[in-house]
This record gives sequence, C-alpha cells and structure tokens, in this order.
Amino acid sequence: MEKINIGPQGFTLPMPLAILGTHYNSSPNYMALGWSTRVNFEPALLGIGVNKRHASHATILENGEFSINFPSTEMVKVTDYVGLVSAKHTDKSDLFDRFYGTLQSAPLIKECPLSLECKLYDTVELPTNTFFIGEIIGTWCEERFMTEGIPDISKIKPFVLTMPDNSYWEVGRCVGHAWKDGKALT
Amino acid sequence: MEKINIGPQGFTLPMPLAILGTHYNSSPNYMALGWSTRVNFEPALLGIGVNKRHASHATILENGEFSINFPSTEMVKVTDYVGLVSAKHTDKSDLFDRFYGTLQSAPLIKECPLSLECKLYDTVELPTNTFFIGEIIGTWCEERFMTEGIPDISKIKPFVLTMPDNSYWEVGRCVGHAWKDGKALT
Repeated sequence: MEKINIGPQGFTLPMPLAILGTHYNSSPNYMALGWSTRVNFEPALLGIGVNKRHASHATILENGEFSINFPSTEMVKVTDYVGLVSAKHTDKSDLFDRFYGTLQSAPLIKECPLSLECKLYDTVELPTNTFFIGEIIGTWCEERFMTEGIPDISKIKPFVLTMPDNSYWEVGRCVGHAWKDGKALT
Repeated sequence: MEKINIGPQGFTLPMPLAILGTHYNSSPNYMALGWSTRVNFEPALLGIGVNKRHASHATILENGEFSINFPSTEMVKVTDYVGLVSAKHTDKSDLFDRFYGTLQSAPLIKECPLSLECKLYDTVELPTNTFFIGEIIGTWCEERFMTEGIPDISKIKPFVLTMPDNSYWEVGRCVGHAWKDGKALT
C-alpha cells in the first residue's frame, strides 16, 4: 500500500509514562512526563524533555535534582491529573506518600513501583523545551516488584503514552528477548 | 514493603524499539535503537542516544541525516538482528525494502508501519554516547495503519524493550486517555 507523509507531528512512539518529582518553593511537586530516555550507559544518564512554561522547569535549574517515578496502570488517573494542573496554581505536595534517597530535592513516590533519583548533569536548551540530562544516583524498588533481583515489568505494570491520539496503553505480552532472538538470523 | 536501592542501572523503562536508518559508505545501514524520545514540540525534535562505537554513529555526523523506523511485533527477530551485527563486518543494506522521502541519506523501511525522516539539528556529546537531536522532516505511514487520519498503535503493533531483563513486550490494552482522565480529580 502507498506510503504517505503525514507531516512532522505524526509520531506514535509508545512513550514510558513517568511522574517527574521536584521541589517547588521547597515543597514536593509532581508532573506527568512523557519524554524521557536513557542517553548514556556508564555513567548512567537519563534525559527528559520539559517545556519551559512548566513550574518543574525552573525548579530543576534551581535545585539541580529531580526524580523519575514510574506509576502502575492503577495510577492512570492521578498521573494524568498531575499533568493537567500546575504547581503555580494548585498545591500537589500531598498527593502521594514520599520518601527520599540521597538527594534532598528529589521526592520519590512510595506508590510508584520504581523510582529513579537523578542529579542534573547537563542542560540542552531547545526552542520550547529544555532537555535535562540527569545522572541516575539510585533506583528504588521493592522486592515484590522484582524477580531474581531485577525489576519485573509484569509486576510493575507501567503504561505508555501515544500521541497524537493521546492514549495510555498497558504493556502486554512478552514477544521476545533482546541480543538473543536475532541470533537465529546470523 | 521496604524500598531498596538497586543502584544506577536498575532501569526498566518500557523503551520504544526502533530501527535507526543511515547511509554507511553510501549504502543503507540499519541498527536497533532503544534510546529515543521527543524533546521539543515545535519544531518537531526527537533525540536518540547512540554509542560512539557503532558504525551508525559516524554516519550521522558525516551525513547529518537519519531515519527512525518503528517495526511491528512480527519484526522482532530482524530488529534484534540489526542490533547484533555491525555494518563494519556485515552488509545489512538489502535486509529491507526501502524508500526515501525528502532526505538523501535517511533510508525508510517499507516493512515498518511508521517511519520518521530526521535532519540533524544538534549534537550532545556524552562520555560513551552521543545524543543526536534531529528535526522530524516527515512521518511516513500507510492508510491501513491509521484511524481517522492518525497513526493507530493497535494497527501498527510496535514493541518496547525493558532492561536489564532485556525483553521485548507488545503494547497491550488501552487503559486511559491523556489530558482527559485526570479531570475527574480536579
């Protein structure tokens, strides 16, 4: 069938949905985050794209710290909510139970099965967004979400976002193994 | 239950699995790519983390162009394969049927339901990887993978990667709608 060009905004990546944690006016603040990826293996670096208008943007520049928390599918509504309202108008500090690792301004969400605490490593300024690169200082999880010492996605139950249809999707069946299944073709 | 710190490499993001397309020695070349995210809305920018040792790395610096192709779950094996063997030793140019959009060195994969052609916009050098930021020049799809003019993930059937368990997962059921479901809590 014919390939058609639907323009620059036709993207449908499945994006890992996360909740960005920062301190806004010294108080915990949370924002839904769809744009994140690992960018370097060692040191462990992760980058996030944050719009300059968001309250979280200034707080990362100010404190140099942030957390990335992965909610489970049971947390779809509250995750969407923290993306709808701004800390500039609504206090979101008590929405979640929180704990801290090594960093002082990176609130970790107890309700999320997996959380990363990150220290700002580099800042890439783009037209409407800043791409913040953070060094992952720690990964926080619980035994009940792990199998043989490794986080288990089938227990964590994260969800992904697609745009421009703006839908959330669960992660489904395992369909293969990386650096392994392709060996059949070598 | 107790939260435990499993160190900086405990990440389990569901990462959108893509095939990076470039020209290596003037010939199409492909590589499995797990590290990508949108980073700016307008202009439409997308960033990818590529290890400096990969053949694709030098080609992007040289040509300033690349493609991002999203394979469906039927393409797990061949996607994994292009991540296992290097263009430095194995010619991968005829693995896929290809077409081109506007750019000359961004081969688009016909077998992939969705492909982006990108022009290099910025380069962020990191210790082991480079984060290449590309401007999305076009998104190529087919009517059969779309619903009401928008790419439909349930027809595209992309898959995601988790590490360190190195598994591929299909995208499952729709569990909500973004910028909408959270309104119930406002």
